[in-house]
Amino acid sequence: MNVAVVGVGQTKFGEHWGRSLRDMAIEAGLLSTQDAGIGLDDVQSLYIGNMSSGNFIGQEHLAALIADQLGLSPKPAVKCEAACASGGLAFRQAYLAIKSGMADVVMVLGVEKMTDITGEHAISALMAAGDQEWESSIGLTFAGAYALIARRHMEMFGTTQEQLAMVSVNNHKNALNNPFAQFNMNITVEDVLKSSMVAEPLHLLDCSPITDGSAAVILANERGVSRFEKPVWILGSGHGTDTLALHDRKSLVEMLATRTAAKQAYDMAGLSARNINFAEVHDCFSINEIVAIEDLGFCGKGEGGRFVEDGSIAVDGEKPINATGGLKAIGHPVGATGVRQIVDVVRQLRGDSYNQISGCEYGLALNIGGSGATSIAHIFGMVGRK
Amino acid sequence: MNVAVVGVGQTKFGEHWGRSLRDMAIEAGLLSTQDAGIGLDDVQSLYIGNMSSGNFIGQEHLAALIADQLGLSPKPAVKCEAACASGGLAFRQAYLAIKSGMADVVMVLGVEKMTDITGEHAISALMAAGDQEWESSIGLTFAGAYALIARRHMEMFGTTQEQLAMVSVNNHKNALNNPFAQFNMNITVEDVLKSSMVAEPLHLLDCSPITDGSAAVILANERGVSRFEKPVWILGSGHGTDTLALHDRKSLVEMLATRTAAKQAYDMAGLSARNINFAEVHDCFSINEIVAIEDLGFCGKGEGGRFVEDGSIAVDGEKPINATGGLKAIGHPVGATGVRQIVDVVRQLRGDSYNQISGCEYGLALNIGGSGATSIAHIFGMVGRK
Repeated sequence: MNVAVVGVGQTKFGEHWGRSLRDMAIEAGLLSTQDAGIGLDDVQSLYIGNMSSGNFIGQEHLAALIADQLGLSPKPAVKCEAACASGGLAFRQAYLAIKSGMADVVMVLGVEKMTDITGEHAISALMAAGDQEWESSIGLTFAGAYALIARRHMEMFGTTQEQLAMVSVNNHKNALNNPFAQFNMNITVEDVLKSSMVAEPLHLLDCSPITDGSAAVILANERGVSRFEKPVWILGSGHGTDTLALHDRKSLVEMLATRTAAKQAYDMAGLSARNINFAEVHDCFSINEIVAIEDLGFCGKGEGGRFVEDGSIAVDGEKPINATGGLKAIGHPVGATGVRQIVDVVRQLRGDSYNQISGCEYGLALNIGGSGATSIAHIFGMVGRK
Repeated sequence: MNVAVVGVGQTKFGEHWGRSLRDMAIEAGLLSTQDAGIGLDDVQSLYIGNMSSGNFIGQEHLAALIADQLGLSPKPAVKCEAACASGGLAFRQAYLAIKSGMADVVMVLGVEKMTDITGEHAISALMAAGDQEWESSIGLTFAGAYALIARRHMEMFGTTQEQLAMVSVNNHKNALNNPFAQFNMNITVEDVLKSSMVAEPLHLLDCSPITDGSAAVILANERGVSRFEKPVWILGSGHGTDTLALHDRKSLVEMLATRTAAKQAYDMAGLSARNINFAEVHDCFSINEIVAIEDLGFCGKGEGGRFVEDGSIAVDGEKPINATGGLKAIGHPVGATGVRQIVDVVRQLRGDSYNQISGCEYGLALNIGGSGATSIAHIFGMVGRK
């Protein structure tokens, strides 16, 4: 049975000093039901994507908490975690729950409150997504992990710092009219190259920020969907994993998890990379967008830097990537990001995005956890499949 | 399509100073495939139940990690969390994944490594399962929360400290021959009443311990199940939630989440409390076993204390509860417990338990999170349903 996204909502992403996690979750959740034109009574189950509320705010057991705060108790509520891919994971599990026949209408809500602890502690909390025994315990940070990937990509394929910078420039430009983005400002390649070095070759403006925020979607199956105006159908779903520790992988410049997830999603949708009109891609660091567009098959391995440089990823390019700003400019509340990506794909397909791509039929969302140990890919379209 | 448990495994529960979380998970996972008579190649997907590895060992992103350690990458791996109900939650999500048609054979693995931090820090990490704004931030502990429930139960129904103690006495007696239990020792009612007071009226021996351990099961659908020898079928599955904060509930002595989960599971199985021959019930504190057997309908509300006192919960009683030792004597590695309960239900139904109940046809596992904000119930039998 086909399943569609029938409502979307999100908070503004940013540093919300005056708001709690539950407060942001309530806003995003209610906006998604409002957009779907339903009440909370219609929602039969809740899936929460969150990475680390235990470390960030001393709160686990988040699914039951948010269910209560939204007035959904005693309905089932599930929290899923796969580091920065938690939102995509929760979405996929909600999709499977509907496919199982257990529910017709489900809410998926991603949320993270990251600014209640210091930046230093946040860096260390985030590194819990890497291998504790082999990476974080010896001082590796995520910027460090992605710097290793970037260095190897530069060495093997001649990718340049300028090309890395162009990823951030593209994404910032795309966010100028996004009212939910953490940053609405243009930056230049020179700005990126002049910004502080975080982990060579990655500068500050190659890195997505620390962000508070929440995003939510409503899923419904064909039985539940008839009353909704603009269903956006899930055509493909894929989920792959890989080693947490970078040194255990055969290659630093290719993510097996992404290739696995993408193949599953393409096969299920009966589509190939060529058919995809645009994508939301996980740009936690600029290099990751380049590696991801290669692994998704939008260009060949090693060609990502040139693909960015020649303008293919621009909104009016061959394959618009992160048309509303990506993690870099919208912000990256880690557990919320995977759901926010889907919110933006849905808005594009409905034709009401803040930076609308013309004539798009198929959109893809790729959510990556850690340095690539989890990848979740979903393909969406305006027409369902049998 | 019917789904069955076709393999079970677990580590010894206890204080494993010399073992890591991943080490325990590998042991339990391999034992479950060995018991099922399959190889890891046959496992298509992994579901992990874990509450708080971020706080306990500085490691999130556990599902991809364990998938790698077991050699399952790049297959999908999902972590589910609902505090102490994380294991039951992971089991239910794996069940839904099979029902959705996404997989035929899935591993569910619960694991927690709690002794790498001090007891004081563990108490505080566990309290993240309560309401951070209204409970833990003002100093409530879980023993404190359950003490409030016990006090109210005693006041309303005349439940006695001796009756509470008898829960622990029963469970310790049942664990005497369980090679995986943290404690293999008899205790008396006097021992319980003389043990240190933790949160009045709960003594030390009313409380389950802090434990390291892992448990795993293999699930298969009818397509996958033909080659397995002793499938134990899932007949009913239920999942309910409630407010995290105790003060928001209508009643302290009744758990809405449990009643919701139980009703769903009974309805789905076409069975009632009367039909259930035995149960694994979440006795994190002695009072919780009493409240749970009432909410499951094994006796009337308020009659739980007398039900325990008259021997109904003994292995040769009317309704054996926690026949292999419960959380109290087997130990309570929080994310593993819900899976371990199912391992023990399966062993009983197969007839190869360490403390075998004679003539049992239907068994129930009830896994509770926090002070009752999540409850997950599953009913099992040797014959599948259409």
